[in-house]
Amino acid sequence: MIRDLSDDEAREALVCKWGLVAPDVLPAWVAEMDYAIAPPITEALHRAVAAGRTGYPQFAAGGALGAAYAGFAARQFGHEVDPERVVATVDVTAGVRLALDVLAPPGPLLMPVPAYSPQLAIAEICGRERRDLVVEPDAAHAGIDLAALDRAFADGARVLLLTQPHNPWGRVFSRAELEGIRDVVRRHDAFVISDEIHAPITLGDAVHVPYLAVTGTAEHAVAVVAASKAFNIAGLKCAQMVTADERLHQRLVTAPMARNDSWSVLGVEASIAAYAEGDAWLAALRTTLTARREQFVAGLAATLPLARMRPLEATYLAWVDLRAYGHDDPAARALDLARLQVSAGHDYHPGLAGHVRVNIATSEARVEEIVRRLGVAVG
Amino acid sequence: MIRDLSDDEAREALVCKWGLVAPDVLPAWVAEMDYAIAPPITEALHRAVAAGRTGYPQFAAGGALGAAYAGFAARQFGHEVDPERVVATVDVTAGVRLALDVLAPPGPLLMPVPAYSPQLAIAEICGRERRDLVVEPDAAHAGIDLAALDRAFADGARVLLLTQPHNPWGRVFSRAELEGIRDVVRRHDAFVISDEIHAPITLGDAVHVPYLAVTGTAEHAVAVVAASKAFNIAGLKCAQMVTADERLHQRLVTAPMARNDSWSVLGVEASIAAYAEGDAWLAALRTTLTARREQFVAGLAATLPLARMRPLEATYLAWVDLRAYGHDDPAARALDLARLQVSAGHDYHPGLAGHVRVNIATSEARVEEIVRRLGVAVG
Ligand SMILES: Cc1ncc(COP(=O)(O)O)c(C=O)c1O
Ligand SMILES: Cc1ncc(COP(=O)(O)O)c(C=O)c1O
Repeated sequence: MIRDLSDDEAREALVCKWGLVAPDVLPAWVAEMDYAIAPPITEALHRAVAAGRTGYPQFAAGGALGAAYAGFAARQFGHEVDPERVVATVDVTAGVRLALDVLAPPGPLLMPVPAYSPQLAIAEICGRERRDLVVEPDAAHAGIDLAALDRAFADGARVLLLTQPHNPWGRVFSRAELEGIRDVVRRHDAFVISDEIHAPITLGDAVHVPYLAVTGTAEHAVAVVAASKAFNIAGLKCAQMVTADERLHQRLVTAPMARNDSWSVLGVEASIAAYAEGDAWLAALRTTLTARREQFVAGLAATLPLARMRPLEATYLAWVDLRAYGHDDPAARALDLARLQVSAGHDYHPGLAGHVRVNIATSEARVEEIVRRLGVAVG
Repeated sequence: MIRDLSDDEAREALVCKWGLVAPDVLPAWVAEMDYAIAPPITEALHRAVAAGRTGYPQFAAGGALGAAYAGFAARQFGHEVDPERVVATVDVTAGVRLALDVLAPPGPLLMPVPAYSPQLAIAEICGRERRDLVVEPDAAHAGIDLAALDRAFADGARVLLLTQPHNPWGRVFSRAELEGIRDVVRRHDAFVISDEIHAPITLGDAVHVPYLAVTGTAEHAVAVVAASKAFNIAGLKCAQMVTADERLHQRLVTAPMARNDSWSVLGVEASIAAYAEGDAWLAALRTTLTARREQFVAGLAATLPLARMRPLEATYLAWVDLRAYGHDDPAARALDLARLQVSAGHDYHPGLAGHVRVNIATSEARVEEIVRRLGVAVG
């Protein structure tokens, strides 16, 4: 059910991932998958184009998009979402900005680091101070340190950007972890923006728990979700803001239109198709990605035995500690010496040396080649 | 070449304009046209969907989009644009925000009023004071009053949002008018954001002059342009920022990604098709809209002889002064009494009574019906 794209197909389809690297470079960087998109999405898009559906989307909350997401959340996460409280926005990063601007109380933003790199700039863009909750590279476990979180709120921080599942940690947070976070947040009357773009991409038997599915979170949290990452449609530009509190919902829907009217009508169509008709494809994707994870972990152990990688529980983005090989910037070496484009760890954790983020959402043959080239460049 | 949509087709295609009104309401409000989109756009979209082009767009400036826009500007406006200095953004309103946030000097924003209503909120969204340059409803001519502009800059305003052609004034500014504005702006070292979304939609023999085509504007101006309005693809979400100054261009392309990475890949494809292959369709559109203008003006004169309308030189949005009929909110009456949805003048000019904005981009029969219903409600 998951069809690998050939190199030529991938160049046509993924104009960023494949188009921004030289033709001899194997791209394993930006978070896109070298797989054909799910047939129901393609069909929905052709139908919409044939109908000339290129004008403004409906700007109401809820609707067919809200219903489709609520159905998906119920089936996939056992999470009851009020379809009327699903509000469209253009993409997840814009949704995080919107949440900061219209929902979160003023004050410094806490960023767990390493972080999805473009979001490191979000605090400044939104006129806030950024304070980092750093996971040290030697930590056995990547998680939110509750004592540090407590201190940070006591010191004046007001908002936590919780990315879960986490890119690039690869973590799926347990319900107990989320409850621990909730307790600290409530103690300080703080706010949580939960970026759950990777929620559908759990691997093996990992289970995603939406932050809003944890009791006692409704008044202090918004989730930003999307079909974009799991269904490879990030270029179609439609994400969703989910709240479970009428006051927060009202703030979203009464925000001036010029703050939030940029999602695309075809993104809406594709997201509805993904949420409503994508379960089987998604199940196959998880199986495929879980296999690629096993392959990558085994290959890495054989090729670069000193590489260190915490368990990859979700996403197809492997965070690899290569410090043992003594190169400050292994991503630059991979490109120069082996024509492999991976992402540099210091983009996600400023100042951090010796780490790379590797995108393994590709064919079995390419994963093998990724490992081989990494070995050539770093070993 | 311009094909009218049937009611059923329009409901399928234009889910905002036709979908947000009751089935018995004739929609003449939001700026969308009841015409089938140009065939080269449909074909480009089907091709892109078939290729699975749903991932992130390339995030470079220039490229095929820059080249297509530069070609279009040269042919349509006789305006030389450096294709490398065409930068994608998600839509025009977001582009205006981006320009305010990263290009314009700090300080109050001058809004010519009446204004495109969602943009009335932009100053506040961007943390600026808004000051209005009001065109009085009794003024014979709608334009920028240069003495008032001069005073406003002397009083501390720093940025002018110049919408040209202007919605809802319907004005195309002459080169002499633009030169007058330029001189005042330069005297005060101020900045111009030129929203030229309606540039291709000139009627009759009106000629659009891009603000950046006026000498001596490069250092103090950015144009925000799009194929979206003229080609009815506003839901596809791709606009362009055009600068003619390397320093301004650099500020745009070095802005953090989370400020500007939301335009859609299918919006890029559609825009390229529109700019590169849309000239003939656009010429036909102008002829059609010019005919609808004549029809509307004649119909209005016959049906509501006390209605006042300045010359409609561009756009398909007629700004109609109905004060002589003594109703504060003729748009509300039109909806209640005649099931006609037009836009209320006070949305564009807060506090203004007795005006409506009427969208005439529809079939000959519907324009006739629009006039008839307006007459029923207001006359
Ligand atoms: C955690 C996280 N949030 C947001 C994004 C980007 O989402 P969008 O393109 O919708 O802004 C990514 C992309 O990989 C991501 O990993
Ligand atoms: C002057 C003007 N600017 C901007 C817009 C909206 O453009 P966008 O949807 O690209 O933000 C409109 C819509 O009619 C408009 O009239």
